[in-house]
Amino acid sequence: MSILRVPTAQLVAVADAFPASAQALAEKSGAQVRSVDAIMASDDIDAVIICTPTDTHYDLIHAAAKAGKAIFCEKPVDMSADRIRECINVVQANNVPFLTAFNRRFDPNFANIQARIAEGEIGEVEIVTIMSRDPSPPPISYIKSSGGIFRDMMIHDFDMARFLLGEEPVQVYAVGSALVDPAIGEAGDVDTAAVTLTTASGKICQISNSRRASYGYDQRVEVHGSKGLLRAENVHENTVEAATETGFNRARAKLFFLERYEAAYLSEISHFVSAVMDGKAPSPSITDGLQAQRIADAATQSAQTGLAVKL
Amino acid sequence: MSILRVPTAQLVAVADAFPASAQALAEKSGAQVRSVDAIMASDDIDAVIICTPTDTHYDLIHAAAKAGKAIFCEKPVDMSADRIRECINVVQANNVPFLTAFNRRFDPNFANIQARIAEGEIGEVEIVTIMSRDPSPPPISYIKSSGGIFRDMMIHDFDMARFLLGEEPVQVYAVGSALVDPAIGEAGDVDTAAVTLTTASGKICQISNSRRASYGYDQRVEVHGSKGLLRAENVHENTVEAATETGFNRARAKLFFLERYEAAYLSEISHFVSAVMDGKAPSPSITDGLQAQRIADAATQSAQTGLAVKL
Amino acid sequence: MSILRVPTAQLVAVADAFPASAQALAEKSGAQVRSVDAIMASDDIDAVIICTPTDTHYDLIHAAAKAGKAIFCEKPVDMSADRIRECINVVQANNVPFLTAFNRRFDPNFANIQARIAEGEIGEVEIVTIMSRDPSPPPISYIKSSGGIFRDMMIHDFDMARFLLGEEPVQVYAVGSALVDPAIGEAGDVDTAAVTLTTASGKICQISNSRRASYGYDQRVEVHGSKGLLRAENVHENTVEAATETGFNRARAKLFFLERYEAAYLSEISHFVSAVMDGKAPSPSITDGLQAQRIADAATQSAQTGLAVKL
Amino acid sequence: MSILRVPTAQLVAVADAFPASAQALAEKSGAQVRSVDAIMASDDIDAVIICTPTDTHYDLIHAAAKAGKAIFCEKPVDMSADRIRECINVVQANNVPFLTAFNRRFDPNFANIQARIAEGEIGEVEIVTIMSRDPSPPPISYIKSSGGIFRDMMIHDFDMARFLLGEEPVQVYAVGSALVDPAIGEAGDVDTAAVTLTTASGKICQISNSRRASYGYDQRVEVHGSKGLLRAENVHENTVEAATETGFNRARAKLFFLERYEAAYLSEISHFVSAVMDGKAPSPSITDGLQAQRIADAATQSAQTGLAVKL
Repeated sequence: MSILRVPTAQLVAVADAFPASAQALAEKSGAQVRSVDAIMASDDIDAVIICTPTDTHYDLIHAAAKAGKAIFCEKPVDMSADRIRECINVVQANNVPFLTAFNRRFDPNFANIQARIAEGEIGEVEIVTIMSRDPSPPPISYIKSSGGIFRDMMIHDFDMARFLLGEEPVQVYAVGSALVDPAIGEAGDVDTAAVTLTTASGKICQISNSRRASYGYDQRVEVHGSKGLLRAENVHENTVEAATETGFNRARAKLFFLERYEAAYLSEISHFVSAVMDGKAPSPSITDGLQAQRIADAATQSAQTGLAVKL
Repeated sequence: MSILRVPTAQLVAVADAFPASAQALAEKSGAQVRSVDAIMASDDIDAVIICTPTDTHYDLIHAAAKAGKAIFCEKPVDMSADRIRECINVVQANNVPFLTAFNRRFDPNFANIQARIAEGEIGEVEIVTIMSRDPSPPPISYIKSSGGIFRDMMIHDFDMARFLLGEEPVQVYAVGSALVDPAIGEAGDVDTAAVTLTTASGKICQISNSRRASYGYDQRVEVHGSKGLLRAENVHENTVEAATETGFNRARAKLFFLERYEAAYLSEISHFVSAVMDGKAPSPSITDGLQAQRIADAATQSAQTGLAVKL
Repeated sequence: MSILRVPTAQLVAVADAFPASAQALAEKSGAQVRSVDAIMASDDIDAVIICTPTDTHYDLIHAAAKAGKAIFCEKPVDMSADRIRECINVVQANNVPFLTAFNRRFDPNFANIQARIAEGEIGEVEIVTIMSRDPSPPPISYIKSSGGIFRDMMIHDFDMARFLLGEEPVQVYAVGSALVDPAIGEAGDVDTAAVTLTTASGKICQISNSRRASYGYDQRVEVHGSKGLLRAENVHENTVEAATETGFNRARAKLFFLERYEAAYLSEISHFVSAVMDGKAPSPSITDGLQAQRIADAATQSAQTGLAVKL
Repeated sequence: MSILRVPTAQLVAVADAFPASAQALAEKSGAQVRSVDAIMASDDIDAVIICTPTDTHYDLIHAAAKAGKAIFCEKPVDMSADRIRECINVVQANNVPFLTAFNRRFDPNFANIQARIAEGEIGEVEIVTIMSRDPSPPPISYIKSSGGIFRDMMIHDFDMARFLLGEEPVQVYAVGSALVDPAIGEAGDVDTAAVTLTTASGKICQISNSRRASYGYDQRVEVHGSKGLLRAENVHENTVEAATETGFNRARAKLFFLERYEAAYLSEISHFVSAVMDGKAPSPSITDGLQAQRIADAATQSAQTGLAVKL
């Protein structure tokens, strides 16, 4: 739990559907175990961190918003754009701070690119290219309830695209294939996918995903602008290079997402705590969560119909 | 002229619409100046290199094929797929060797990737990503007669896609914008473009082009396969890195295509000469020229209609 | 304090010549403030971490060893090789675990190189090259009491050389100049230095140091062996590369040693805790501390006399 | 022969102790076969290229200088510094242009570094580091007549050091071992060597050589200055990177010196031809040849005595 590393925050209570898990975290952190209802009713709690299964987010967001708690919610907010809109309504009605946990915005490399775009280093953004490949596919059982690759995996890239384009996509074209594992295809999903986004002013974003990469967790972003290019290369396991008869060899990209994005997770929760304490709106907002979900829905539809979908 | 560097070939004669150019090359190379008709009728000439404007290719190919000359022809063979088919007919009827000069196949880096794919190093090809950006746009006058970015510039990438996919694309989706220069848009063309190709077995290729890159002639290719990734990085002006207060700085990518692809041009013409001397069919063939043109036509149509186009 | 991040260890008490510092750390960590004498007499304390000025190490080591505490001691153990020998005697007489805190052995990159040498990946070690450059020189007041660049700064590299050579140096040749700041020369020290070490079997190590590097904290190591080369490149602030008219630019090397070696500090103290708990000898040992100091003494003498010095 | 690629030069005649070799080159190039005496007496020859065994240089230089020919001479000019001084005398007495063929100064990467130092990009030069490793050792027969590693191999690096330091070395310390092949040691030579050079103002240069590198022809240079660092990395066989289960792998460094330094050879001879035609003194001069030889002699002496040698 990154929250334990934020010196200005205190973890007061934990709840978990599995009591043993709650107990273990409580013991490690010095927090109490309370029920969800008790947490929502607690005066000594200012903010809640929701990292439960997606289908529980809706109710928890409603309860927390009504209780006036600041909310940090794992992505996706919900699988249904309409239900996310209802969450937006309750969050806005109760005026509570809300952060949709698109952690990659907080990766020091990607954040650096966005900041430099904002400073004008590469002029106008023209082409964004995002490549994300997981080391290996999740179990088929997970695939079946995931909502599909566009909503489960590429949604991170849709948020990254919005973050870097600085403009809303207006059209989505998607293709996908089950090349990694036929069972993924039989489950109605794809494991290899590519999307093209276009904005009203003509900016273009290309995204590709694969559920398999023998060489690590492949996470690259590049932005071509009118004055130049910014790109973030992979994070490798170490900086060692071996030169032998077979050439020059570097280590794999970091394999495990918790390790790859460790700095991002800490920066994300720190930003949330600071924003809440300073009375500022955290970012990405719940609306950012909605927009990414809308793109994911459109991509899913495009891949099924073969037609580009307007947003 | 790379042909002068091929020790097994002799440049016998040159023809040029501008007599002074023919004369200059003749003097430099020890070749004679002859008319096109005389070249076609010459018994001491086995092969012709056609690097004239595109609209002259059709007649020259017909003349050379009927004269039994081996033909090296600059891309594109013709702007019309139907006329290329007619060229294929005359080439096949006269059984003459023919090479369509997609020089990039002969770049040592891209050729290395293709060879390693063929050897199975990365298993099955799944995603091909091609990025091509020119240092700066050509004159508007050139743009107007170019046939558009897909036929003029991205056609190289379509051929590269076929070279690396090892399978014909069956569907093309294209988008484009005039972001570099509004005059390009006014001329009916785009300067920033992206294409998605898909094959029957589900392989995917993403290509992006820009007519401008401040950092040099950007030419990158990568292929994601079931067992790993192969990618060719840019060729830089030198290997020097400067480390100063502003960071670690390397030289730009080579800016000029003749310098960037110098090794490719030499390798290409050497391959043509060897193939002709050995009685083997040179590659890429005239059919490869047709297929790339068909994809370019489809991409042009897709960008205009917003619909994916089947091949 | 990295010790706070080791879950198997508990910080019981702190002592500091500045009571406020002790108090601050105690409050942050939940430890008590005790006097040095009280700590040495405490039954609830198994190990001590000595990170006080060098001239206090001798007495603290003697006290801790006699009290039977495991000892983690900042480098250098002492400025005098003879006094280090006395410390070795007391540590051995009381049979207490002792770690000399040459943190760089625990850097994941350098540790990876050493492990791969041990596994035989590059065959026999032949040439070790170490480059260390600090971002900027310390104050002259620090320089004056530092013992000189070989004992203060290059001592880390001498330990790294021993770590990677796998064999004791038998001869030392050193040169040095005051090129960064004449005041360093006036203080009797140098700020730019180079050393050659040779071992009995003929292995060679070259080390260079500078007190200034505009581009960050430059820390590189490479080992050339009979079968190949292993090298650790710098750790950069991020993985972003910008390509613009001026070339391809990456971020500086991390500037601050606490950040550059963060992982090393954590790994070092974790190793110490594990070794003490498992009843194993931690490494690097106090003898390693002595050997590095002896090389530093010899290098100092060599730079002053212009003669290679035998060890 | 790079001279054949220089359009402003014409190869008039060739001489070779092996008549068949002379004949072959003559046929390929259109030049005549003449005796050495005839060449020296030829009015149609302005310059000679001496690439014969080292022990023949002295007589050929004398003959060519007296005949008023410009001289391009392979390094080393001679194994004896005294005999080089005699060559300097005859060259100066006859006022003929002379280039000592230290080809590496013309490598585009190293030349780029030197030019940028001259422009002040990294301020004052402080530390130069040069690493040269051959792919594999020459035959023992060659070793025996080579003059030793310092005169045969590291002499290139001594010239590079002078080129980059911009100041004469005044002291040399050298160590060497026979680690690659005991037979090299039995022949009285070493195959692994390291040298430290110091200049009057305190600049330092470290050089290391090995006769073996499994990963290609390893040729790296770096210069640390008051404002930053310039370094030239190896030239690899291609730009392809493969990412697989075993990490990220690039091609070896180019293995063969003719290929590695192809651009340097062409640039060198072009510079010689231009200088002769423009009436300017080519560089590196015969004095540069002497200075490198003097350093090599001093290094040989240092490695044998264990003492630093003053120049």
